[in-house]
Amino acid sequence: MKTVRFFHNGWVRKGIVDHGLVLDEAGELHHPDSLQYMLPFAPGTVVGLALNYRDHAEELGLEMPKEPVLFIKPESSLIPHKAHVVRPKGVEYMHYENELAVVMGRAGKPARRVKAERAMDYVLGYTIVNDVTVRDFVGNMYRPPIRAKGWDTFGPMGPMLVSADEIPDPHNLELRTYVNGELRQQGNTRDLIFSIPEIIEFVSRFMTLKPYDVILTGTPKGISHVRSGDVMRLEIDGLGALENSVREEIIPGVG
Amino acid sequence: MKTVRFFHNGWVRKGIVDHGLVLDEAGELHHPDSLQYMLPFAPGTVVGLALNYRDHAEELGLEMPKEPVLFIKPESSLIPHKAHVVRPKGVEYMHYENELAVVMGRAGKPARRVKAERAMDYVLGYTIVNDVTVRDFVGNMYRPPIRAKGWDTFGPMGPMLVSADEIPDPHNLELRTYVNGELRQQGNTRDLIFSIPEIIEFVSRFMTLKPYDVILTGTPKGISHVRSGDVMRLEIDGLGALENSVREEIIPGVG
Repeated sequence: MKTVRFFHNGWVRKGIVDHGLVLDEAGELHHPDSLQYMLPFAPGTVVGLALNYRDHAEELGLEMPKEPVLFIKPESSLIPHKAHVVRPKGVEYMHYENELAVVMGRAGKPARRVKAERAMDYVLGYTIVNDVTVRDFVGNMYRPPIRAKGWDTFGPMGPMLVSADEIPDPHNLELRTYVNGELRQQGNTRDLIFSIPEIIEFVSRFMTLKPYDVILTGTPKGISHVRSGDVMRLEIDGLGALENSVREEIIPGVG
Repeated sequence: MKTVRFFHNGWVRKGIVDHGLVLDEAGELHHPDSLQYMLPFAPGTVVGLALNYRDHAEELGLEMPKEPVLFIKPESSLIPHKAHVVRPKGVEYMHYENELAVVMGRAGKPARRVKAERAMDYVLGYTIVNDVTVRDFVGNMYRPPIRAKGWDTFGPMGPMLVSADEIPDPHNLELRTYVNGELRQQGNTRDLIFSIPEIIEFVSRFMTLKPYDVILTGTPKGISHVRSGDVMRLEIDGLGALENSVREEIIPGVG
């Protein structure tokens, strides 16, 4: 099942996406392009992985990490499909990162000390996250700081939550990122350094992954700079397309 | 005002601490030592600072950071006063960190791009956090990874939320940490490298600090190893004492 949440005449509505239309709780049909999207669910802790694609690590000339490199994306950074990403004033290099996002909590089960063999039983579904990053502040790639990835609006998520049963093989999904219609990034989740079950085993060894906690699995090769006015469109097979445009930061009281 | 939350015969109750007693919503009085504590409030994002005391940086032989070194403590790590901290099997060096925790959100105001001069207007109050850390996994002190500080139970918080008006000068509070009654750590918030207003200005420059988001201001000199059975008691002037004992990890199915 593919689900969305959106605003409709002041109401918050949930809907099911089917045959290119959205059927909401009130029995009304909507065209997906007409919706004012919310996040597809209320996310808990969002754990990200840096450097989890072989081709991306090579692109940056960096060694493959020996274990998952983790960071947390603050809740305040998350925005829905179609909302604007704000480019901070004065930054040199800001880029998108197209990432398969794993949503935890099938059957409401928290995951702690889950072995890789059983890990997929804890996956509720998937969505797309754009792990927007300002490279100026990254410093050490093996330890991405909050200030590189934690800005307000740096976490577009959506458009849909797609249940796990619809994605029989999450390790063979094409990712494509377009900027203003031009294909800039292309990859496949088969190139993940740490697979989804391996990541869940690693993280759940030390912390509980609750329902609606999210794991960002990293981004493939092909990141590039985005400027104010650019439209980022991130596609992943079976998960639709997450689209957000970039806007210049407006600082109140500053010209 | 000093407030607590606790369980009482199955009810969740809030109480006010006054003259050494707790007066709850139902008008009943309790002795603070008799309570089954909850976290004093429902925390949002918990942002921590590494290396924010001059004496602690010196103790570790490390340079003073030029700007705040931030990390996020996951929600799943937080536990209340008196709950047990679990020492993971096989770790070499695990330690307490006594920290003044700043609770955001006075008058419900989110803080974004707040200048230091106005920052204290956004502080709702204070509590104590024990930023428990496994040094084995720290690696780079300037980028503490989630795996060093993010284990379940590694974030004792409490016992009370003390409103800002009760702490006229948060930059002159003594911190004392006792392990099994022995004084191990002593410091004063006057030795903070980055003051509370400076931290709020720095963080709110890139992310919104919402009501009940928390900033951990770092720990002074005097960290030391704790073992199973040890009782950690963290005191900060005006904020009471946060006590938690250490227990060995029990892994289901492992002897």
